[in-house]
Amino acid sequence: MTRHPSDAPTPPPAGTDNGPAVSREEFDALFATVRAWGRWSPADRGAWNRVTPDLVRRATALVRSGTVLPMARPWDTSPGPDNSRPALHYMSELGDLEAAEPSAHKDFIAVDYHGKAVSHLDALSHVAYRGQLYDGRTARDCVDAGGAHFGAVSALGPLVTRGVLLDLPAVLGCRWLTPGRAVHADDLVSAEQALGVTIGEGDAVLVRSGSLRRRREEGAWDPGAASAGLHVDAMPLLAGRGIALLGGDGDSDVRPSPVEGLHSPVHALALAAMGVPLLDNLDLEALSAAGAEEGRYAFLLVVAPLHIPGGTGSPVTPVAVL
Amino acid sequence: MTRHPSDAPTPPPAGTDNGPAVSREEFDALFATVRAWGRWSPADRGAWNRVTPDLVRRATALVRSGTVLPMARPWDTSPGPDNSRPALHYMSELGDLEAAEPSAHKDFIAVDYHGKAVSHLDALSHVAYRGQLYDGRTARDCVDAGGAHFGAVSALGPLVTRGVLLDLPAVLGCRWLTPGRAVHADDLVSAEQALGVTIGEGDAVLVRSGSLRRRREEGAWDPGAASAGLHVDAMPLLAGRGIALLGGDGDSDVRPSPVEGLHSPVHALALAAMGVPLLDNLDLEALSAAGAEEGRYAFLLVVAPLHIPGGTGSPVTPVAVL
Amino acid sequence: MTRHPSDAPTPPPAGTDNGPAVSREEFDALFATVRAWGRWSPADRGAWNRVTPDLVRRATALVRSGTVLPMARPWDTSPGPDNSRPALHYMSELGDLEAAEPSAHKDFIAVDYHGKAVSHLDALSHVAYRGQLYDGRTARDCVDAGGAHFGAVSALGPLVTRGVLLDLPAVLGCRWLTPGRAVHADDLVSAEQALGVTIGEGDAVLVRSGSLRRRREEGAWDPGAASAGLHVDAMPLLAGRGIALLGGDGDSDVRPSPVEGLHSPVHALALAAMGVPLLDNLDLEALSAAGAEEGRYAFLLVVAPLHIPGGTGSPVTPVAVL
Amino acid sequence: MTRHPSDAPTPPPAGTDNGPAVSREEFDALFATVRAWGRWSPADRGAWNRVTPDLVRRATALVRSGTVLPMARPWDTSPGPDNSRPALHYMSELGDLEAAEPSAHKDFIAVDYHGKAVSHLDALSHVAYRGQLYDGRTARDCVDAGGAHFGAVSALGPLVTRGVLLDLPAVLGCRWLTPGRAVHADDLVSAEQALGVTIGEGDAVLVRSGSLRRRREEGAWDPGAASAGLHVDAMPLLAGRGIALLGGDGDSDVRPSPVEGLHSPVHALALAAMGVPLLDNLDLEALSAAGAEEGRYAFLLVVAPLHIPGGTGSPVTPVAVL
Repeated sequence: MTRHPSDAPTPPPAGTDNGPAVSREEFDALFATVRAWGRWSPADRGAWNRVTPDLVRRATALVRSGTVLPMARPWDTSPGPDNSRPALHYMSELGDLEAAEPSAHKDFIAVDYHGKAVSHLDALSHVAYRGQLYDGRTARDCVDAGGAHFGAVSALGPLVTRGVLLDLPAVLGCRWLTPGRAVHADDLVSAEQALGVTIGEGDAVLVRSGSLRRRREEGAWDPGAASAGLHVDAMPLLAGRGIALLGGDGDSDVRPSPVEGLHSPVHALALAAMGVPLLDNLDLEALSAAGAEEGRYAFLLVVAPLHIPGGTGSPVTPVAVL
Repeated sequence: MTRHPSDAPTPPPAGTDNGPAVSREEFDALFATVRAWGRWSPADRGAWNRVTPDLVRRATALVRSGTVLPMARPWDTSPGPDNSRPALHYMSELGDLEAAEPSAHKDFIAVDYHGKAVSHLDALSHVAYRGQLYDGRTARDCVDAGGAHFGAVSALGPLVTRGVLLDLPAVLGCRWLTPGRAVHADDLVSAEQALGVTIGEGDAVLVRSGSLRRRREEGAWDPGAASAGLHVDAMPLLAGRGIALLGGDGDSDVRPSPVEGLHSPVHALALAAMGVPLLDNLDLEALSAAGAEEGRYAFLLVVAPLHIPGGTGSPVTPVAVL
Repeated sequence: MTRHPSDAPTPPPAGTDNGPAVSREEFDALFATVRAWGRWSPADRGAWNRVTPDLVRRATALVRSGTVLPMARPWDTSPGPDNSRPALHYMSELGDLEAAEPSAHKDFIAVDYHGKAVSHLDALSHVAYRGQLYDGRTARDCVDAGGAHFGAVSALGPLVTRGVLLDLPAVLGCRWLTPGRAVHADDLVSAEQALGVTIGEGDAVLVRSGSLRRRREEGAWDPGAASAGLHVDAMPLLAGRGIALLGGDGDSDVRPSPVEGLHSPVHALALAAMGVPLLDNLDLEALSAAGAEEGRYAFLLVVAPLHIPGGTGSPVTPVAVL
Repeated sequence: MTRHPSDAPTPPPAGTDNGPAVSREEFDALFATVRAWGRWSPADRGAWNRVTPDLVRRATALVRSGTVLPMARPWDTSPGPDNSRPALHYMSELGDLEAAEPSAHKDFIAVDYHGKAVSHLDALSHVAYRGQLYDGRTARDCVDAGGAHFGAVSALGPLVTRGVLLDLPAVLGCRWLTPGRAVHADDLVSAEQALGVTIGEGDAVLVRSGSLRRRREEGAWDPGAASAGLHVDAMPLLAGRGIALLGGDGDSDVRPSPVEGLHSPVHALALAAMGVPLLDNLDLEALSAAGAEEGRYAFLLVVAPLHIPGGTGSPVTPVAVL
């Protein structure tokens, strides 16, 4: 049987500040509050339907310096506490198999990309709450061994919209948020004010916790046990602003989860309730530096997932253009 | 031993018009003519170094309608005459393995993407001519079982530039070019004039032959045996214009190859001589339709390959914004 | 979505002799007749429980010449009409990555082995009829995205028993049975008499149709459309004899299926009713030649599947010792 | 670039007893002493050519109790200090994709099996010393991206011979040998005497160090840093006895290596000099218990690798019949 060890959480560090605790009843009420079912067509593009051609035009008009920044971590073939299913990369041709000239080099790649190591997009089929995907679809009827019949990444297509970086360590004057530190609505509002941006309709919101910097400076740990991320109390703000996409240098959820019996409550709210796809495990370091240098935290963002019919997401290299 | 059947060419159809024939000596002279070695730093970004921040800004300023068009074919897990190494897609979690709530759906993807079925980017390490990669690097020293040490896709990063569609069937009034039909410099110039665009410095040139339309309407065939594509005599024009990227709905090479002893001479010229990465096997159908409708053949193009250290390319979903 | 083209049957050839037709009602009666549920412990070893240590000893005592014959087809990385999911084989180390000395060569293999191309063992979890696995277990409760909780190949372990080759082309004086030709109980009895063997308790019965010889001499075809194999009316004989294992150079089922609405009725009877694992797609050519030469059709057989917890079977190289 | 972390050795534990140290010059002399090049045909079956049909018959005649014991560790999909490249196991069909009836369950398996976690056979192409494979073949000419042209596992085929278990912890009265403890020729001779067996021509010698028991009781560690195994001074004894196969519950080499500048000297001697394939990472626990219970350390052994043309080895389930 397939069992993945890093899914076994270890105790959080002392000083974890992931609260306040949320009961399941409170969570369900919150879910109902932010739920955006039956609102869009096609349903499985969810909140990406918010990004009208007009918003696309406005996003491209943001470009000033022409700096292009990719946000993907490197393909990681080594296991680690945050990489229990390492990616594969094998050479399939080294110029010695097929007819020359010219000679060719080819490679084979493979990845079970959900998890904590690969920069990837979660499509709406990735997560169900109480057996229901976004739009109230019954998960059991929508996903089988062949993939997702609703909410597939192939139904999303690419996104071109305004990206907003909420660089929390920059705002708070620290290198990174302590793993286990919850990000609340007022943190987001403070960041908006400090950085001079306001989250609006159709935006892709990228929240930087500094976790990748911490990984690089202090080594990898198990983010399932402790990671900085959003507390569920931040989600009504994002729902109210009408965002299209949420992402970060972690997977958006604070862990340990503050919600009774739920390991990934922000995933449940974003994907299943709000129809908002997620970008997990980004590299926001260069964007953070550029934001500080250019003093700009809004930019053109392009996300172009692989076109996988039935896929629940895709490894991806989101691109910011400043 | 690994042998791939579709590499065995079948006879080209009657009426193939892939000439004129080119001797190896003539090809080598052509190679020397378009060679752009020692020109850029970092060398393994090749012609992408042409795309300055200023060109990025000018590309983003092209956006008018805000129409967003992806150009990737679907992930194809079925073998066929043009898909000898079908991609893999397996579900790794169906909500029944790990702890709920929420329940998760996950998948595993794998692909040996070079070939004729997957929309992908060729990095500069993909092809060597006479044992040399772009910039005169010795292939044997640069690529091993761990991947490419020079010319990797991770050295390219993303590209944001002006895309130009040369829609040849639209210009010629046919549904598609006959497989085996060579595209020459004057075809490109005629297309520029007919479509009102001029290829310039840093452009990504996408040449549509209609081959994907033919595949959809008439069924798949072996493009290694016969495909419409560029004759080598078109390459000096493209080199002279200073393009950054070349792509198409096939793999850019006319086949059978008109060059004595070379199966993919355009690959050799673009990748190894000019330092111009290639985009193979795109879906340009929607872009063709939009171009006709909006009367525009220049647009913002974004290519964001996976960040694979040592990779010789990447499956990719290029995105046009009109 | 994952769809495999070779599963799309083509019309059977003229002269198919796969009858008599069997109604679903007749099949269900047959299923009840051969059903051996609740008989053994552990249940998921099924009929392999028949092979007592005494039968193991008797099987090893059969060895006369000391000839050792493997029965696996080569790992096939090329797609074809009988190989819609080609195996993978990539080199992961060519002596150029890791520290020498010594230098090492390593490889990565992968396979979705069920189908018509790979020599493999079907464990009892492979097939369910009317939602039930062998022993009446509910398939939905026993198999999930992590694998099989009942009837896994890891529960089978290896088999050492007497093998019996029923070499039908040798008996019938033909090169092979025509694809679509059904093998009936009286064919098996005639073969026993002609070859001087009698199938008994705990035997592994290998039925040779000559299909692999036909493949080698005439080329591959889609066995899902037409293959020689057992008619369901042969199964009561095999059940009555108390066999432990059934195999062949095809997958044991005649196709097109003679049973109304069932594509693989012999699979359903053997695996789900009788608890008899199957060996599919063997290479019995050398065994056929050796049998003819040594005049012996009973031998020591060893089947040693990979130890895959939760696996529904395994690629395997069965070995005969004459 | 593909880099595997567990290949980075950690310091050996205190009390390591892996000596005496061996200079490179001494090793080369030893290599020359045990070298068996040019001796057999086909060369790439190496020492398996020793196992004549007569030895096969004698091996099968050893069976007494009829006990059948598999020796493979479970397919391990979890990374760990001894599993840097975890195996893959995904379900490709859960009865919900293809036409029922019957419904089918299928799976996909993948593995980069060389290393410390998978029970596998090393074919003669696996290791080269000073650029030469067994029989003096130049490695660079024999192995490429398509696999091995000499010494492939497909050239070995199966082995049926006498197996001898040298159960060192049983002889020494300990639970396991301390990681880093070298096994010398006199240890083997003592074990022969204590267990009442004598290694002879064509034997498969299995050396149990208890390392798997230690792993189960104390947890996994990095065997590259410290493992019990053979000192090179034991190899002339094994060469002199004319063994066909060497295996163990580790990978046969003591580590840290006592030989100057060589990480796996026993691999070099067995594979490259002697032409003796290796069985790595076996589970010998049941065989140890059965040996003690039945008082027998010689038995029928069957090794049946997958039939992979060009493969450098194979995952395998060796089987002992007592």
